[in-house]
Amino acid sequence: MVHEASMRILEEVGIEFRYDEAVDIWRTAGAEVEGTRVRIDRELLLGLVGQAPAQFTLNARNPAHSVQIGGRHMALSPNSGSPFFLDRDGTRRYATRADNIECIKLSHQLSPINIAGGFHCEATDVDIAHRHLAYYADSMRYTDKISIGSCQGAGQAQDTIDMAKIVHGADFVENNAVITGFMNGNSPLVWDESMLSAAIVYARAGQPVYYSPFALAGANTPASTIGGIAQLNAEALAGCAFSQAINPGSPTIYGMFLMIVDMRTGSPMTGTPDLAHMLLMAGQLARFYGLPVRSVGMHTGSKNLDAQAGYEANMNMHAAVLGGINLITHCGGWTEHGLTCNLAKYCTDSDIAEGWIRYARGPRLDDFAEAMEAVREVGPAGHYLGAAHTIANYTTAFHMPALMDQTSFEQWEEAGSKDTATLGFERADALLAGYEKPPIDDETETELLDFVARRMSEISAEDMT
Amino acid sequence: MVHEASMRILEEVGIEFRYDEAVDIWRTAGAEVEGTRVRIDRELLLGLVGQAPAQFTLNARNPAHSVQIGGRHMALSPNSGSPFFLDRDGTRRYATRADNIECIKLSHQLSPINIAGGFHCEATDVDIAHRHLAYYADSMRYTDKISIGSCQGAGQAQDTIDMAKIVHGADFVENNAVITGFMNGNSPLVWDESMLSAAIVYARAGQPVYYSPFALAGANTPASTIGGIAQLNAEALAGCAFSQAINPGSPTIYGMFLMIVDMRTGSPMTGTPDLAHMLLMAGQLARFYGLPVRSVGMHTGSKNLDAQAGYEANMNMHAAVLGGINLITHCGGWTEHGLTCNLAKYCTDSDIAEGWIRYARGPRLDDFAEAMEAVREVGPAGHYLGAAHTIANYTTAFHMPALMDQTSFEQWEEAGSKDTATLGFERADALLAGYEKPPIDDETETELLDFVARRMSEISAEDMT
Repeated sequence: MVHEASMRILEEVGIEFRYDEAVDIWRTAGAEVEGTRVRIDRELLLGLVGQAPAQFTLNARNPAHSVQIGGRHMALSPNSGSPFFLDRDGTRRYATRADNIECIKLSHQLSPINIAGGFHCEATDVDIAHRHLAYYADSMRYTDKISIGSCQGAGQAQDTIDMAKIVHGADFVENNAVITGFMNGNSPLVWDESMLSAAIVYARAGQPVYYSPFALAGANTPASTIGGIAQLNAEALAGCAFSQAINPGSPTIYGMFLMIVDMRTGSPMTGTPDLAHMLLMAGQLARFYGLPVRSVGMHTGSKNLDAQAGYEANMNMHAAVLGGINLITHCGGWTEHGLTCNLAKYCTDSDIAEGWIRYARGPRLDDFAEAMEAVREVGPAGHYLGAAHTIANYTTAFHMPALMDQTSFEQWEEAGSKDTATLGFERADALLAGYEKPPIDDETETELLDFVARRMSEISAEDMT
Repeated sequence: MVHEASMRILEEVGIEFRYDEAVDIWRTAGAEVEGTRVRIDRELLLGLVGQAPAQFTLNARNPAHSVQIGGRHMALSPNSGSPFFLDRDGTRRYATRADNIECIKLSHQLSPINIAGGFHCEATDVDIAHRHLAYYADSMRYTDKISIGSCQGAGQAQDTIDMAKIVHGADFVENNAVITGFMNGNSPLVWDESMLSAAIVYARAGQPVYYSPFALAGANTPASTIGGIAQLNAEALAGCAFSQAINPGSPTIYGMFLMIVDMRTGSPMTGTPDLAHMLLMAGQLARFYGLPVRSVGMHTGSKNLDAQAGYEANMNMHAAVLGGINLITHCGGWTEHGLTCNLAKYCTDSDIAEGWIRYARGPRLDDFAEAMEAVREVGPAGHYLGAAHTIANYTTAFHMPALMDQTSFEQWEEAGSKDTATLGFERADALLAGYEKPPIDDETETELLDFVARRMSEISAEDMT
C-alpha cells in the first residue's frame, strides 16, 4: 500500500530536483522533466534502484574498523552537526574545532561507534568556508575508524574526496567506499542544489551518501505515520535512483531522518510511539527495495542527561534495532534535538549501545545442556554462584553496562551521589586522558595538512574576489 | 527446547513445596511426593495447567476500570513494596501509610495505570501485623480501580478477601476475580509456606495470583538467559498447576519477576539486553501454555530520575510490550531496584506508558487515502500545517508526551531549567491537589473501617498471648 502510494506520488505529483545538472541527469535517464519538476515512472525508478548494491563494505583507514553496510549488519555513528557544546559544568556555549577533535578522540575509543570522524559539532571558530577541510583532516589524523564527509555543495564534496585519496590512495578510493555523507531532503518533495551538487560528486567517485528526507512529521509530511512514510519513501527512493542514474551500481543508502512536530508548540519531538512505528516501516521498505537503510538512533529533545534523555533514546533505539536499520546515526552525544553536543551522553549511549548490539545478536543457546546440568547440580534452594557452569561463564553470561549504577544507596551516596551525567563526563575525561593517536604515515599526514593549508588559502582568495 | 527442559526439571529434580497442606494437595493430585519435594510428570502438570482460563476479567469497584487479563490485552500496575520513599527535596526516608495513600491517589488519576490500589510503599509507621488491613482499606477508599491484595500468609490473604467481600459483595467475589496478588518464588525451585498458605486461600476464593519466581539470574538461576528461563518456567508452571489442583478452572497468572545479578558486585541489574531476551521468552512460553502472563516493566536501579532510569525503564518496557506480557507491573515509581518509591517517576513512567499503549495498538491506517490527498494538495515545497487533513487530525495524529520537554533551550532556561524529576514532582503535586475521592457507599465504608478496627485489635490480642 505504501509502495503503491509512493510510486503514484513520483509518477503523478513528481519531485523537485532544484539543480540544473540534476535535471539534465534525469532527462537523460528518461524521466519526464518540466522545469525542476521530475516525474519518474515506476519502471524507470525501480530499474535504477535495482542496480544499487544491497550491501557493501565501508572501508576505514584501519581495515579492522571497516564495516558492512546493508544485509543483516548494523553500524552505528554518533552525534553530528551541533552548533553548541555542553561544558563539564553544564554551561552551553558555541562549539569549536577543539571540541570536535575531542568528540573524534572519544568516538575513536568507544567500541560500538563505527563512524568516529566527521563534524560532531560545528567548528564555529573556523571560517565557515574552511570547516570541511578541518573536519576531514582532523578525522583522518585522530581516528582510524570511518569518517563522515562534508557534503554541502560540490566544492566541499570534491575537497573531501581529494583528501580521502591522499589518505587511502587514489586507486583505492576509485574502487572502494571509504566515506559517507548525508543528503538531507527538503520535505515535502524537494532536493536542493546544495545537496544535489555534492551528491553528484560523491556518486561519480563511487562514494555512498544516505538520501534522507529530513522529516518533521506533521509539518512537512501529512499528519499520519503511514502517510508520512509514503511521502518520505518517495523522496528517499528518488534520491537513491538519482545516484544510480549518475553511476549505476555505485553504493547508495536509503535514509530517514525522522522527527515529529509537537502540534502544541511547533517544536520537534522524538522518542514517541509514532516515530517508532515509522522507524519500523522504514526498515521494512528498504528491505523491500533491497537497499541498505540509515535512520536515527538515540535522539532526545532533553537539554541534559535526565530521564527524558534515556526514555527517548531507548524508545527510538529499540525501533531502529528491531527495524533492521543498517546504519543508525546519532547513537552518541545527541541532546536538544541535535543542537547541543554532550560528551557525557557519548559515553552513556555507547554503554547502552553495547547492550543493543548484544540484544541484536540474540541469546546464547549453545550452552543450554550445560546450564541444565547446573540446575541438577544446584537443585532446589541452592545457589549458582559456585556452580561449575557459572564459573566457566562468569564474565560472558550477562551484559553488565559500566555506567549504569547498580551499587547500594549507601555505596552510591558515599561515592558522591553521582547521576548519569556525572558518570558520563568522568568516563569521557578518563578516555580522553588515555587517548592514543592511531598510527598515521608521516608523509600522508604532511600531504593532508599541506592540502588543507593550500585549499584554505585558495578558498580565502576566492572569497575576496 | 525450553519446554522439554522444564518438564524434565519437574519430573526428575522436582520442586520444593514447603508447606504441609500444599504437599497434601499435590499428593492428592497424583504427584510423587517425598517430604517437601514434589515431582510432577508432564501429563499431570499440563492437564492441570490446561484447566486455567487463558483470559479472565479482573473487576474493579468501578466497572469502567475493570480489565481483561490474558489474550491480546495489556494491563499495567505501578510500584509495590518499597520500604523507602523519596521526598520532594530528594531526601530518602522510610515510607509511611500516608505516603502509600498518596501513591494510591496518584495512581487513581494516571490513566495508563489499571491497578491503583495495594502497597506501593511500606507503611512502616503501622504495626507490621496490621499493615495488610490498612493497605486494602485505604485502596478501596481512595480509588475505584483494581487493587493488589496482600498475600504473605493465610491470615493476610483471608482478611483481604473478607474485605473484598464487604466492598464488592460476597456473592460477586465468589463468582468473579476482584483482586490479585503476587506469589514470589524462592528460586531455585522452592515455594515457601508464607506464599503457599496465602495461595491456597486465594485459589479457594477463586481469586488469581501471579506465580512469579523472583529471579536474580546468575545467582538463583544458571548463568544463561535460556537456562534461567527453563528453570523459572518450571517454577511458574508448578505454581499455576498448584492453583488448579486446589480449584480447577480458577484464574491464575504465569509470572516472572526478572532481575539479573551483576557478577562484579552481586547487586541486582535491570534494563539489560539479556533481561529483554528473557522477557520475550517468558511471553512466548506463557502463550504456549495458554496462560495469562505477568512480568515487570519500568524497572531501574537508579537512585533518582536520571538518564539511567529512562534508559533502563524503556529497555525493559519494550520487551514487555513486544513480549505480549498481559500484566506489566512496576510501570510507575520504581527506583533503586524497588527499594525507593518515587512519585515523580509515577508521572513520567505514566507519560511514557501512554506512548507504549499507543505503540501496542499499531499505527492508524484508515485515513491513508486522505493523507495521500494531502500530499497532492500540498505538493513539493509546501507545508502541511494548514492542510485540511492536518486540521482534521491535528490532536490525534501523533502522541505528544506531556512531561517530555520539547521547548527551546531559551524557553526551558527561562522556565527554570527543569529536569524530568522536577517536572514529574510538579505533575504529582498538581494531581494530588486536584484529587477527588471516588464515590463509595457510606455503609460500605463504615463496615470496611469497622472490620479493620476489629481485626487490628484481634491481631494485637493474638500477638500478646
